[in-house]
Amino acid sequence: MLEKLKEEVLEANLDLPKHGLVTFTWGNVSGIDRESGLVVIKPSGVSYDVMKAEHMVVVDLDGKTVEGEYKPSSDTATHVALYKAFPGIGGIVHTHSPWATAWAQAGRGIPALGTTHADYFYGKVPCTRPMTEAEIKGAYELETGNVIIETFQSLGLDPLQVPGVLVNCHAPFTWGKDAHNAVHNAVVLEEVAKMAFHTFQLNPGVEPMDQTLLDRHFLRKHGANAYYGQTGMI
Amino acid sequence: MLEKLKEEVLEANLDLPKHGLVTFTWGNVSGIDRESGLVVIKPSGVSYDVMKAEHMVVVDLDGKTVEGEYKPSSDTATHVALYKAFPGIGGIVHTHSPWATAWAQAGRGIPALGTTHADYFYGKVPCTRPMTEAEIKGAYELETGNVIIETFQSLGLDPLQVPGVLVNCHAPFTWGKDAHNAVHNAVVLEEVAKMAFHTFQLNPGVEPMDQTLLDRHFLRKHGANAYYGQTGMI
Amino acid sequence: MLEKLKEEVLEANLDLPKHGLVTFTWGNVSGIDRESGLVVIKPSGVSYDVMKAEHMVVVDLDGKTVEGEYKPSSDTATHVALYKAFPGIGGIVHTHSPWATAWAQAGRGIPALGTTHADYFYGKVPCTRPMTEAEIKGAYELETGNVIIETFQSLGLDPLQVPGVLVNCHAPFTWGKDAHNAVHNAVVLEEVAKMAFHTFQLNPGVEPMDQTLLDRHFLRKHGANAYYGQTGMI
Amino acid sequence: MLEKLKEEVLEANLDLPKHGLVTFTWGNVSGIDRESGLVVIKPSGVSYDVMKAEHMVVVDLDGKTVEGEYKPSSDTATHVALYKAFPGIGGIVHTHSPWATAWAQAGRGIPALGTTHADYFYGKVPCTRPMTEAEIKGAYELETGNVIIETFQSLGLDPLQVPGVLVNCHAPFTWGKDAHNAVHNAVVLEEVAKMAFHTFQLNPGVEPMDQTLLDRHFLRKHGANAYYGQTGMI
Repeated sequence: MLEKLKEEVLEANLDLPKHGLVTFTWGNVSGIDRESGLVVIKPSGVSYDVMKAEHMVVVDLDGKTVEGEYKPSSDTATHVALYKAFPGIGGIVHTHSPWATAWAQAGRGIPALGTTHADYFYGKVPCTRPMTEAEIKGAYELETGNVIIETFQSLGLDPLQVPGVLVNCHAPFTWGKDAHNAVHNAVVLEEVAKMAFHTFQLNPGVEPMDQTLLDRHFLRKHGANAYYGQTGMI
Repeated sequence: MLEKLKEEVLEANLDLPKHGLVTFTWGNVSGIDRESGLVVIKPSGVSYDVMKAEHMVVVDLDGKTVEGEYKPSSDTATHVALYKAFPGIGGIVHTHSPWATAWAQAGRGIPALGTTHADYFYGKVPCTRPMTEAEIKGAYELETGNVIIETFQSLGLDPLQVPGVLVNCHAPFTWGKDAHNAVHNAVVLEEVAKMAFHTFQLNPGVEPMDQTLLDRHFLRKHGANAYYGQTGMI
Repeated sequence: MLEKLKEEVLEANLDLPKHGLVTFTWGNVSGIDRESGLVVIKPSGVSYDVMKAEHMVVVDLDGKTVEGEYKPSSDTATHVALYKAFPGIGGIVHTHSPWATAWAQAGRGIPALGTTHADYFYGKVPCTRPMTEAEIKGAYELETGNVIIETFQSLGLDPLQVPGVLVNCHAPFTWGKDAHNAVHNAVVLEEVAKMAFHTFQLNPGVEPMDQTLLDRHFLRKHGANAYYGQTGMI
Repeated sequence: MLEKLKEEVLEANLDLPKHGLVTFTWGNVSGIDRESGLVVIKPSGVSYDVMKAEHMVVVDLDGKTVEGEYKPSSDTATHVALYKAFPGIGGIVHTHSPWATAWAQAGRGIPALGTTHADYFYGKVPCTRPMTEAEIKGAYELETGNVIIETFQSLGLDPLQVPGVLVNCHAPFTWGKDAHNAVHNAVVLEEVAKMAFHTFQLNPGVEPMDQTLLDRHFLRKHGANAYYGQTGMI
């Protein structure tokens, strides 16, 4: 069942330690098959060394396990909420990558300060509001998804143009057209978080970058008029 | 004698350089066999390249060598003091890992600023008071243990819920249910120390995280109602 | 056509990830054959894993592709502008290396603070002015080259003595006598950017280094009276 | 001639990149045979990849080449000056390791802030005064040695108790009983420089550590009453 997607999700999970984004098992990747509405996600707390495609868990959009002998990631309810709210995305990543997490712990979004950011995120990567006591004590992982969705709705953000978020006091989530692309955005977010940190140290009053430059870089890589990269050649 | 424990303690010692926690021989791990009351600990100043299980030293709870041709770690008296005071722990790690050591040198404990911290440490990782001249000139390594114990007692902390400490002007100690778990906590402490450092740079007035969120994350992984990870499957 | 130069440019491109200067495909190197006026440059958005000499693209000094089945780097117009304006250079590198990029995002040039800098850059590595809306909306990559050239002209800098620049809100470009040397200077710039960052944190009022010391170090390695290294022995 | 010492000095030079202390050829190690008064030193500007024992250069205490087909390190005059002034040392290392260099560029010595420092350096690692125009324009490398010697004399420091220095606006030199030990101290200095940097960020008003604690740690590892490590067993 969904063997190809399981392989993709496995590979995307294994890419997290390769890119230095996770310590131990502090991360999870999922991918969705939009046709069947089924999500493939990492099992909870399983070491990357021993993880195989057959360990991946298949859940439906209510978060119920459809196939798999392991418990799905404890963050499954967050993933599912995002898939339901953001129909254009195909993969989701959660890590505690240290630079992005520092911003999340500081309760600050990461403004667009340069073209590295602009190539992937069309403006500030937002930080959610703190969760309420009721949310934390309730269906916590689901509410984590809800506060992300609320953040995007209240700021009028398109999740395809800003493919990531910082959850307040917690850590980042990123997404993309598939699991692989979501990992790509997780790597970029960590790099951008590091650069922005040092930029503020060098220039505490730095302003977000010029909108024209942000447009130019984002639209050079994304949308109908993109002219970066090859056209399916390699 | 205690061959299995020696292997475990050796492996835990060798994990320190693998996780980037030690330079040269700046670290030591021990494990205790609670039944016999005997502690297995790294020999002093032996290079990780050549270290074998047979080099491990067995000491009793008075710190006297029971078996082994090498001198035990110069920090043995600290380990033994902690085993006596904290009966629930089975392994201890001491390193000079650089981020945690910077906090220790600054004389500051590491407050819980986010869920990464909350997943492993149930509140602030405390920093001991400076040691007195008499303590330093006296049985220094034993007194190092005593000042750690005093810190936990005076703050009313449970060492199983806060499995680590910063010794003022010195460096961290962590512990756990066994030597392997103590190393795990040493890795987490270093990661948490790094994230907290950057969080304070981004937001100098940051407050400790919400108690409800701390509860939720710590108790998701620890205690009777934990629901993270598998139930002994992998 | 230009097979040897293609090999050199390929190797120089592959050296970027080896030196930790690039994430994914965020970098490009070119080299010029001054006799024919032809430039060999990396194709756009091609992964370093699969890149071969035959993928390199040959363009003329108007940026038009002369040979190659791939699209040249999206930054080709910047490279070509620099080759035309700086006739003494033979290779150019563009990266988003994180320390240099932080300075570029902060809009600050990197002053010469010590002998590491002085060994390679004869004074401050300048940061360009922000680009105008017209420049960004126009022939953006060509204008990026123009603003670099303007910076060197207005400051009266010799590009052979200061082989690099920070493009405001963007990232560094470096150059050298050939592609390999340009990569060398990219590595040095990143190292110097990191050291200067920490120097300012330790001493916010630090002044640029003494001119006599700058002269001594730069001229020890460069120009007619250089006495560092061997004379073509190894 | 001095084949064993050449092997030792080669190995010590090769250890510099292994420990991440040097970029390209930015470092050099020498060792002295006190009986003959001859110094073995790295050749100038030779890449670590191709360096062999036979490339090592033998110079006398006037810095004149006695054997070797390569030019000795451009810093040879500094090494020789230190060997003459500090008769107890057997090996010298110069690097531009980034953390120690940041302190040198800031013109600040590194105070003893914790036991990691105290285990190897008996107090502050001093930073020299800036060199004068006459010194820089004169026999620069010799004068670099002289300003180091002046620093130790004016502060009344024993080079065996403080085996390293920061040269103002330049970078660190360390030394030891032999080339290998000098590299060891170079590694420690870099680690200590990094920790002290972060300590000051966490606690800008931090004071040097307690003298009693400094004594205890330094004397635990050094001198007649040392009790750390084994007695020649491993």
